Amino acid sequence: MRAAILSTGDELTTGRTLDTNANYIADQLLGIGCEVTAIMTVGDYPDRIAAAWRNLFSHADVVLGTGGLGPTADDLTTETVAKMIDRPLLSDNATAARIRRLFESVGRSMPENNLKQALFPEGATILDNPLGTAPGFRFETETPQGIRRGVVMPGVPREMKHMLADSVIPWLRSLRESTDEYRSHTFQTFGISESALDEMVADVLDPNTTRLAFRAAFPQISVRITVHGPPEKLAARLESAAAAMRERLGEYCYGEGDTNMETEVGKVLAARGATIGVAESCSGGLVSSRLTDVAGSSAYVLGGVVAYANAVKQSVLGVSATTLESHGAVSVEVAEAMARGVRKLTGATYGISTTGIAGPDGGTQEKPVGTVCIAIDSEACTASHRYQLWGNREWVKLLTSQIALDWVRRAALGEDPTRSTVLRK
Amino acid sequence: MRAAILSTGDELTTGRTLDTNANYIADQLLGIGCEVTAIMTVGDYPDRIAAAWRNLFSHADVVLGTGGLGPTADDLTTETVAKMIDRPLLSDNATAARIRRLFESVGRSMPENNLKQALFPEGATILDNPLGTAPGFRFETETPQGIRRGVVMPGVPREMKHMLADSVIPWLRSLRESTDEYRSHTFQTFGISESALDEMVADVLDPNTTRLAFRAAFPQISVRITVHGPPEKLAARLESAAAAMRERLGEYCYGEGDTNMETEVGKVLAARGATIGVAESCSGGLVSSRLTDVAGSSAYVLGGVVAYANAVKQSVLGVSATTLESHGAVSVEVAEAMARGVRKLTGATYGISTTGIAGPDGGTQEKPVGTVCIAIDSEACTASHRYQLWGNREWVKLLTSQIALDWVRRAALGEDPTRSTVLRK
Repeated sequence: MRAAILSTGDELTTGRTLDTNANYIADQLLGIGCEVTAIMTVGDYPDRIAAAWRNLFSHADVVLGTGGLGPTADDLTTETVAKMIDRPLLSDNATAARIRRLFESVGRSMPENNLKQALFPEGATILDNPLGTAPGFRFETETPQGIRRGVVMPGVPREMKHMLADSVIPWLRSLRESTDEYRSHTFQTFGISESALDEMVADVLDPNTTRLAFRAAFPQISVRITVHGPPEKLAARLESAAAAMRERLGEYCYGEGDTNMETEVGKVLAARGATIGVAESCSGGLVSSRLTDVAGSSAYVLGGVVAYANAVKQSVLGVSATTLESHGAVSVEVAEAMARGVRKLTGATYGISTTGIAGPDGGTQEKPVGTVCIAIDSEACTASHRYQLWGNREWVKLLTSQIALDWVRRAALGEDPTRSTVLRK
Repeated sequence: MRAAILSTGDELTTGRTLDTNANYIADQLLGIGCEVTAIMTVGDYPDRIAAAWRNLFSHADVVLGTGGLGPTADDLTTETVAKMIDRPLLSDNATAARIRRLFESVGRSMPENNLKQALFPEGATILDNPLGTAPGFRFETETPQGIRRGVVMPGVPREMKHMLADSVIPWLRSLRESTDEYRSHTFQTFGISESALDEMVADVLDPNTTRLAFRAAFPQISVRITVHGPPEKLAARLESAAAAMRERLGEYCYGEGDTNMETEVGKVLAARGATIGVAESCSGGLVSSRLTDVAGSSAYVLGGVVAYANAVKQSVLGVSATTLESHGAVSVEVAEAMARGVRKLTGATYGISTTGIAGPDGGTQEKPVGTVCIAIDSEACTASHRYQLWGNREWVKLLTSQIALDWVRRAALGEDPTRSTVLRK
């Protein structure tokens, strides 16, 4: 089955917003063996939207569109699609009532233009959107090239992703003619670049039966293996491929499946009944925020201190003036004192700390921007390391938080946390 | 002049690589008043590449393509374009010699397939690529829709950007018939939904001279106005449109231009020489992390406490056991005590606090998931409010952080922080 993707919105054709939806959809379609023949983006003009649908129907059996389902005047997708396939727009009562209820539940009256989101082309199948007001829909139409199928989803990424997984991928699976199935497994890695990862795993698997896909959305660098074949052989095929990959990746792999570092840290801490206290300078609260993104994290996150000012490092974390003066705020000595301080303050099993220069200013010859010290403290021992990271402020914060989280994960697993990463010089 | 953009490469249609080139080019074209009517992506197949060029020529006067100029077998752009416009490929001696020199300069012998990069369609104008081996080129061709122009650039972003700025944009400027220019201005809003915003500003500006674009990437909801016309009239036109929009938006607008809430909070605090201390329970460090995303924030962010466990609320922030017991951790009383506590601890001008139930668990009938209390403390006064927010854990954290930041901004401006938002019931 050949698929095409259409993104609509002036914000995309004017370069204001980077389209990440098409990339995500293409990746998901690959996972079920669907080939993407074309991706297209047009602005909010009915003639361009209609021309794009028609053009893509000549390249693919099914076209997946996103965007233009909002309540405002520049949201034109539904109306344009209805005209293109020559069907009237009908209001769906259940959807209208649901939208009204959503507004009522937050004590607001619904602006009348939101009712536009309850209109669908006659004959369309409505696709639920539990995360927003605009449902999606799918339709069939006769084109000069034959019967074609279209799917319309919201442009908001989290709404689109949910709808894609919930309503679209299962339906696409059911449409395929071959009884061959596809199954994937993903490995999350840290401490290795995408190109080094590519080289490292190049010869692990037979390319005739297993497809590799790399994905770098830092701090997530993952490799996905996809096997295909008759359903009864699939489980064994995937298992053997995964075992080979697992062995090759070794400790570069920190988790498998749809997970991330903060989730894995949480699993390890929870399994051991351990708790964590966080002392952050250069990461500014990001380590704590990521830890607490995980549902149920209150079971192991006791709390933390964002010690941006040196006075706070002293008064709250008990870092001594002497240590600060003789080594500077960005030093392994201060990092260790911060980790010890926050462990004492919160009574946690582990104290983790970060201190560094996120930039763009504040660097010196001796400690340039990107200098970051990390320390972890437990009853057993204190460990620390000085890294030279790179990139802009956002990147340094992100990388620092990823390393700190990996330290906690390794420490809780009983490993040496300073083995965390080849990112170190 | 209408333009279209074509990106080629299997890595794009399989979701492996996110295409950032098209977005960058679209943004640059807008700056010279070039309208992008379509963006397309296809994989490395000659028929798909040729079909995409033909389709885009029907949408635009000039098509800018990237990718497929490398030395390997799957780099098919030059050969495909030559065939499409029916011109032979000719080797350019100067380019061939340059590529050979490039390899020699790093002490390597040139693989013969690199000579492919010295081939161009007859009549094409070669575009220098000082940053890589593959030059680009531009060509003219007669299509059913008339004379069309094509530009081919490398897919490597830094090479493409250099070529675009150096060779392509100046040439496009020289081609334009109209001397009209485009200029935009953006307003950032909070406390109003996208649809309500749309209704609110619908009649402010003349749609014939000003285009409105809304964008909701929560917590950013913005409206951008774009005017066009002769350069000498543009500044006045934009100014008058912006003034009308500014008046209508009133206090829903918290900033103008390419900014966000944390940046605006920083500006207001820095301008007043004020400082901030943050006490977070349900937002888990996100308020601190967002504040410290801003370069230079160490001038006004003293620090913060993530008080997830009640014991930390007591021992670090000095919330009394009685207050915790009689009102519960999620209460305006505890929020106020946290704000007071962190102000005292850090010595900041303002103490801001959050405590709530982010979910998915932990809700009760009296305090369901999404119950969030926010407080701010200064020498002058303490203010607090209980909100009923909605959405999943991530959303509650994000919304909580946005409200808390807006409270700080309003307080520092001397406004009543509790006016922050119509999101409150």
